Amino acid sequence: MSNPLTLNAPADEPLMEYSRDFDFPVHDVFRAHVEPDAYAQWIGPQDVTTRIDRFEPRTGGSYRFVHSRGSDEYAFRGVFHTVRQDEFLLQTFEFEADPEVVTLEYSTFTALPGGRCRLTGRSLYPSVESRNQFLANGMEEGMSDGYNQLDEFLARNGSTG
Amino acid sequence: MSNPLTLNAPADEPLMEYSRDFDFPVHDVFRAHVEPDAYAQWIGPQDVTTRIDRFEPRTGGSYRFVHSRGSDEYAFRGVFHTVRQDEFLLQTFEFEADPEVVTLEYSTFTALPGGRCRLTGRSLYPSVESRNQFLANGMEEGMSDGYNQLDEFLARNGSTG
Repeated sequence: MSNPLTLNAPADEPLMEYSRDFDFPVHDVFRAHVEPDAYAQWIGPQDVTTRIDRFEPRTGGSYRFVHSRGSDEYAFRGVFHTVRQDEFLLQTFEFEADPEVVTLEYSTFTALPGGRCRLTGRSLYPSVESRNQFLANGMEEGMSDGYNQLDEFLARNGSTG
Repeated sequence: MSNPLTLNAPADEPLMEYSRDFDFPVHDVFRAHVEPDAYAQWIGPQDVTTRIDRFEPRTGGSYRFVHSRGSDEYAFRGVFHTVRQDEFLLQTFEFEADPEVVTLEYSTFTALPGGRCRLTGRSLYPSVESRNQFLANGMEEGMSDGYNQLDEFLARNGSTG
Protein backbone atom coordinates (compact mmCIF):
# COMPACT_ATOMS: atom_id res chain seq x y z
CA MET A 1 0.00 0.00 0.00
CA SER A 2 1.56 3.27 -1.07
CA ASN A 3 0.79 6.62 0.47
CA PRO A 4 -0.63 9.15 -2.00
CA LEU A 5 1.20 12.10 -3.51
CA THR A 6 -0.66 15.34 -2.79
CA LEU A 7 0.13 18.05 -5.32
CA ASN A 8 -1.12 21.62 -5.52
CA ALA A 9 -0.48 23.85 -8.56
CA PRO A 10 -2.22 27.22 -8.01
CA ALA A 11 -3.63 28.50 -11.31
CA ASP A 12 -2.05 31.95 -11.17
CA GLU A 13 1.27 31.38 -9.37
CA PRO A 14 4.37 29.85 -11.05
CA LEU A 15 4.89 27.16 -8.44
CA MET A 16 3.88 23.74 -7.24
CA GLU A 17 3.62 22.37 -3.73
CA TYR A 18 3.47 18.71 -2.86
CA SER A 19 3.58 16.32 0.04
CA ARG A 20 4.25 12.58 0.32
CA ASP A 21 4.41 10.45 3.47
CA PHE A 22 6.63 7.39 3.79
CA ASP A 23 6.36 4.49 6.21
CA PHE A 24 10.13 4.69 6.69
CA PRO A 25 12.39 6.87 8.86
CA VAL A 26 13.60 10.30 7.72
CA HIS A 27 17.19 9.07 7.58
CA ASP A 28 16.35 6.38 5.03
CA VAL A 29 14.18 8.60 2.85
CA PHE A 30 16.81 11.34 2.85
CA ARG A 31 19.61 8.87 2.11
CA ALA A 32 17.72 7.64 -0.97
CA HIS A 33 17.75 11.25 -2.22
CA VAL A 34 21.51 11.75 -1.89
CA GLU A 35 23.09 8.37 -2.66
CA PRO A 36 23.40 8.04 -6.43
CA ASP A 37 22.99 4.25 -6.54
CA ALA A 38 19.79 4.53 -4.53
CA TYR A 39 18.49 7.56 -6.45
CA ALA A 40 18.88 5.82 -9.82
CA GLN A 41 16.64 2.99 -8.61
CA TRP A 42 13.56 5.07 -7.92
CA ILE A 43 13.61 8.53 -9.59
CA GLY A 44 11.27 9.07 -12.51
CA PRO A 45 8.44 7.27 -14.28
CA GLN A 46 8.06 3.50 -14.15
CA ASP A 47 9.06 2.92 -17.77
CA VAL A 48 12.50 4.58 -17.71
CA THR A 49 15.91 3.45 -16.56
CA THR A 50 18.23 6.01 -15.03
CA ARG A 51 21.96 6.57 -15.41
CA ILE A 52 23.69 8.97 -13.01
CA ASP A 53 26.43 10.99 -14.70
CA ARG A 54 27.33 13.22 -11.75
CA PHE A 55 26.00 13.44 -8.21
CA GLU A 56 27.60 15.73 -5.62
CA PRO A 57 24.95 16.09 -2.91
CA ARG A 58 26.68 18.82 -0.90
CA THR A 59 26.09 22.55 -0.70
CA GLY A 60 27.61 23.88 -3.93
CA GLY A 61 27.73 20.49 -5.67
CA SER A 62 26.08 19.61 -8.95
CA TYR A 63 24.33 16.64 -10.52
CA ARG A 64 23.28 15.19 -13.85
CA PHE A 65 21.22 12.12 -14.66
CA VAL A 66 19.73 10.61 -17.79
CA HIS A 67 16.45 8.73 -18.14
CA SER A 68 16.30 6.22 -21.01
CA ARG A 69 13.18 4.82 -22.61
CA GLY A 70 14.10 2.55 -25.53
CA SER A 71 16.55 4.59 -27.60
CA ASP A 72 15.29 7.95 -26.27
CA GLU A 73 17.31 9.78 -23.65
CA TYR A 74 16.18 12.63 -21.38
CA ALA A 75 18.93 14.44 -19.48
CA PHE A 76 18.46 16.53 -16.35
CA ARG A 77 20.99 18.60 -14.43
CA GLY A 78 21.27 21.11 -11.65
CA VAL A 79 23.17 22.34 -8.62
CA PHE A 80 22.66 21.82 -4.91
CA HIS A 81 22.30 25.23 -3.31
CA THR A 82 21.89 23.71 0.17
CA VAL A 83 22.18 20.19 1.58
CA ARG A 84 21.35 19.69 5.26
CA GLN A 85 21.62 16.05 6.27
CA ASP A 86 18.27 14.40 7.06
CA GLU A 87 16.48 17.76 6.87
CA PHE A 88 16.58 19.83 3.75
CA LEU A 89 17.61 19.96 0.11
CA LEU A 90 17.49 22.98 -2.16
CA GLN A 91 18.47 22.40 -5.74
CA THR A 92 18.02 23.72 -9.23
CA PHE A 93 16.54 21.43 -11.86
CA GLU A 94 16.71 21.64 -15.64
CA PHE A 95 15.51 19.39 -18.44
CA GLU A 96 18.43 19.91 -20.81
CA ALA A 97 16.19 19.90 -23.90
CA ASP A 98 14.56 23.06 -22.48
CA PRO A 99 17.59 24.81 -20.98
CA GLU A 100 16.07 28.17 -20.15
CA VAL A 101 13.32 26.66 -17.98
CA VAL A 102 15.03 26.05 -14.66
CA THR A 103 13.15 25.14 -11.51
CA LEU A 104 14.18 25.82 -7.94
CA GLU A 105 13.17 22.89 -5.74
CA TYR A 106 12.81 23.01 -1.97
CA SER A 107 12.54 19.59 -0.26
CA THR A 108 11.94 19.31 3.48
CA PHE A 109 12.13 16.00 5.37
CA THR A 110 10.14 15.86 8.61
CA ALA A 111 9.94 13.01 11.12
CA LEU A 112 6.42 11.76 11.83
CA PRO A 113 5.43 9.64 14.85
CA GLY A 114 6.02 5.92 14.49
CA GLY A 115 9.29 6.23 12.57
CA ARG A 116 7.57 7.64 9.51
CA CYS A 117 8.61 10.59 7.32
CA ARG A 118 6.89 13.40 5.47
CA LEU A 119 8.52 14.90 2.41
CA THR A 120 7.19 18.32 1.49
CA GLY A 121 8.26 20.04 -1.69
CA ARG A 122 7.93 23.46 -3.21
CA SER A 123 9.03 24.01 -6.81
CA LEU A 124 9.34 27.46 -8.34
CA TYR A 125 9.05 27.77 -12.12
CA PRO A 126 10.01 30.69 -14.36
CA SER A 127 6.36 31.08 -15.36
CA VAL A 128 2.90 29.60 -14.91
CA GLU A 129 3.12 28.42 -18.54
CA SER A 130 6.33 26.44 -17.96
CA ARG A 131 4.85 24.88 -14.81
CA ASN A 132 1.73 23.87 -16.76
CA GLN A 133 3.89 22.42 -19.53
CA PHE A 134 5.66 20.10 -17.06
CA LEU A 135 2.25 19.01 -15.72
CA ALA A 136 0.91 18.45 -19.24
CA ASN A 137 3.96 16.25 -19.93
CA GLY A 138 3.06 13.87 -17.11
CA MET A 139 5.16 15.24 -14.27
CA GLU A 140 2.64 14.30 -11.57
CA GLU A 141 2.43 10.70 -12.76
CA GLY A 142 6.23 10.53 -13.00
CA MET A 143 6.61 11.81 -9.44
CA SER A 144 3.94 9.45 -8.15
CA ASP A 145 5.60 6.48 -9.90
CA GLY A 146 8.94 7.56 -8.47
CA TYR A 147 7.74 7.71 -4.89
CA ASN A 148 6.05 4.31 -5.24
CA GLN A 149 9.39 2.97 -6.49
CA LEU A 150 11.07 4.66 -3.54
CA ASP A 151 8.71 2.75 -1.21
CA GLU A 152 9.75 -0.48 -2.93
CA PHE A 153 13.43 0.43 -2.72
CA LEU A 154 13.15 1.17 0.99
CA ALA A 155 11.22 -2.05 1.63
CA ARG A 156 13.95 -4.04 -0.19
CA ASN A 157 16.83 -2.35 1.57
CA GLY A 158 15.49 -2.13 5.14
CA SER A 159 16.42 0.54 7.63
CA THR A 160 20.03 1.61 7.98
CA GLY A 161 19.31 3.32 11.32
CA MET B 1 24.06 60.62 -16.76
CA SER B 2 22.99 57.14 -15.75
CA ASN B 3 20.29 55.12 -17.44
CA PRO B 4 17.36 54.26 -15.18
CA LEU B 5 16.61 50.89 -13.62
CA THR B 6 13.13 49.71 -14.59
CA LEU B 7 11.69 47.26 -12.08
CA ASN B 8 8.36 45.45 -12.08
CA ALA B 9 7.10 43.45 -9.08
CA PRO B 10 3.61 42.10 -9.85
CA ALA B 11 1.46 42.20 -6.70
CA ASP B 12 0.31 38.58 -6.81
CA GLU B 13 3.29 36.73 -8.33
CA PRO B 14 6.47 35.84 -6.41
CA LEU B 15 8.85 37.40 -8.87
CA MET B 16 10.51 40.57 -10.04
CA GLU B 17 11.49 41.65 -13.54
CA TYR B 18 13.91 44.43 -14.30
CA SER B 19 15.82 46.06 -17.11
CA ARG B 20 18.83 48.37 -17.21
CA ASP B 21 20.63 49.76 -20.27
CA PHE B 22 24.35 50.53 -20.32
CA ASP B 23 26.27 52.79 -22.68
CA PHE B 24 28.97 50.11 -22.87
CA PRO B 25 29.33 46.90 -24.91
CA VAL B 26 27.84 43.59 -23.79
CA HIS B 27 31.30 42.09 -23.35
CA ASP B 28 32.30 44.73 -20.79
CA VAL B 29 29.03 44.60 -18.85
CA PHE B 30 29.13 40.81 -18.74
CA ARG B 31 32.78 40.77 -17.69
CA ALA B 32 32.00 43.04 -14.75
CA HIS B 33 29.50 40.39 -13.59
CA VAL B 34 31.95 37.49 -13.65
CA GLU B 35 35.33 38.96 -12.66
CA PRO B 36 35.48 39.09 -8.88
CA ASP B 37 37.72 42.18 -8.68
CA ALA B 38 35.32 44.08 -10.93
CA TYR B 39 32.20 42.76 -9.22
CA ALA B 40 33.39 43.87 -5.78
CA GLN B 41 33.71 47.44 -7.06
CA TRP B 42 30.09 47.93 -8.06
CA ILE B 43 27.71 45.39 -6.50
CA GLY B 44 25.37 46.64 -3.78
CA PRO B 45 24.36 49.93 -2.18
CA GLN B 46 26.63 52.98 -2.24
CA ASP B 47 27.47 52.85 1.47
CA VAL B 48 28.90 49.33 1.64
CA THR B 49 32.25 47.83 0.78
CA THR B 50 32.40 44.34 -0.64
CA ARG B 51 34.73 41.44 0.00
CA ILE B 52 34.58 38.43 -2.31
CA ASP B 53 35.12 35.13 -0.49
CA ARG B 54 34.52 32.80 -3.42
CA PHE B 55 33.66 33.41 -7.06
CA GLU B 56 33.53 30.58 -9.59
CA PRO B 57 31.53 31.98 -12.51
CA ARG B 58 31.13 28.75 -14.44
CA THR B 59 28.20 26.37 -14.82
CA GLY B 60 28.17 24.46 -11.52
CA GLY B 61 30.41 26.93 -9.68
CA SER B 62 29.53 28.81 -6.51
CA TYR B 63 30.12 32.23 -4.99
CA ARG B 64 30.04 34.10 -1.70
CA PHE B 65 30.52 37.80 -0.97
CA VAL B 66 30.19 40.00 2.09
CA HIS B 67 28.99 43.60 2.24
CA SER B 68 30.34 45.66 5.16
CA ARG B 69 28.85 48.82 6.56
CA GLY B 70 30.80 49.96 9.60
CA SER B 71 31.11 46.89 11.80
CA ASP B 72 28.04 45.20 10.27
CA GLU B 73 28.51 42.41 7.76
CA TYR B 74 25.94 40.99 5.33
CA ALA B 75 26.91 37.75 3.61
CA PHE B 76 25.40 36.42 0.38
CA ARG B 77 26.03 33.14 -1.40
CA GLY B 78 24.79 31.01 -4.23
CA VAL B 79 25.58 28.73 -7.14
CA PHE B 80 25.84 29.35 -10.86
CA HIS B 81 23.40 27.01 -12.60
CA THR B 82 24.37 28.32 -16.05
CA VAL B 83 27.06 30.68 -17.32
CA ARG B 84 27.06 31.50 -21.05
CA GLN B 85 29.78 33.98 -21.92
CA ASP B 86 28.47 37.43 -22.90
CA GLU B 87 24.88 36.15 -22.96
CA PHE B 88 23.33 34.63 -19.90
CA LEU B 89 23.74 33.95 -16.19
CA LEU B 90 21.44 31.87 -14.04
CA GLN B 91 22.28 31.74 -10.39
CA THR B 92 20.80 31.17 -6.97
CA PHE B 93 21.05 33.95 -4.41
CA GLU B 94 20.74 33.78 -0.63
CA PHE B 95 21.14 36.33 2.14
CA GLU B 96 22.77 34.07 4.72
CA ALA B 97 20.87 35.67 7.61
CA ASP B 98 17.68 34.38 5.99
CA PRO B 99 18.85 31.00 4.68
CA GLU B 100 15.54 29.50 3.62
CA VAL B 101 14.71 32.40 1.29
CA VAL B 102 16.62 31.61 -1.86
CA THR B 103 16.09 33.45 -5.11
CA LEU B 104 16.65 32.15 -8.63
CA GLU B 105 18.06 34.93 -10.81
CA TYR B 106 18.00 34.97 -14.60
CA SER B 107 20.22 37.64 -16.22
CA THR B 108 20.24 38.13 -19.99
CA PHE B 109 22.75 40.40 -21.74
CA THR B 110 21.63 41.74 -25.12
CA ALA B 111 23.58 43.93 -27.54
CA LEU B 112 21.88 47.18 -28.50
CA PRO B 113 22.80 49.34 -31.51
CA GLY B 114 25.72 51.70 -30.97
CA GLY B 115 27.76 49.34 -28.80
CA ARG B 116 25.31 49.54 -25.94
CA CYS B 117 23.93 46.72 -23.78
CA ARG B 118 20.64 45.85 -22.17
CA LEU B 119 20.60 43.74 -19.04
CA THR B 120 17.25 42.10 -18.33
CA GLY B 121 16.65 40.21 -15.13
CA ARG B 122 13.99 37.94 -13.75
CA SER B 123 14.16 36.91 -10.09
CA LEU B 124 11.95 34.18 -8.64
CA TYR B 125 11.25 34.26 -4.90
CA PRO B 126 9.83 31.52 -2.69
CA SER B 127 6.78 33.70 -1.97
CA VAL B 128 5.25 37.11 -2.64
CA GLU B 129 5.94 37.94 1.03
CA SER B 130 9.67 37.25 0.75
CA ARG B 131 9.86 39.32 -2.45
CA ASN B 132 8.08 42.19 -0.73
CA GLN B 133 10.45 41.90 2.24
CA PHE B 134 13.48 42.37 -0.02
CA LEU B 135 11.81 45.42 -1.60
CA ALA B 136 10.93 46.84 1.85
CA ASN B 137 14.60 46.44 2.82
CA GLY B 138 15.74 48.74 0.02
CA MET B 139 16.58 46.24 -2.68
CA GLU B 140 15.57 48.51 -5.56
CA GLU B 141 17.75 51.37 -4.27
CA GLY B 142 20.65 48.95 -3.73
CA MET B 143 20.34 47.65 -7.29
CA SER B 144 20.05 51.16 -8.70
CA ASP B 145 23.13 52.29 -6.75
CA GLY B 146 24.98 49.22 -7.94
CA TYR B 147 24.28 49.80 -11.60
CA ASN B 148 25.28 53.45 -11.30
CA GLN B 149 28.55 52.25 -9.74
CA LEU B 150 28.89 49.79 -12.60
CA ASP B 151 28.60 52.72 -15.06
CA GLU B 152 31.40 54.47 -13.16
CA PHE B 153 33.52 51.32 -13.10
CA LEU B 154 33.10 50.86 -16.86
CA ALA B 155 33.90 54.50 -17.53
CA ARG B 156 37.10 54.20 -15.44
CA ASN B 157 38.22 50.96 -17.04
CA GLY B 158 37.35 51.56 -20.69
CA SER B 159 36.43 48.91 -23.20
CA THR B 160 38.39 45.68 -23.31
CA GLY B 161 36.97 44.82 -26.75
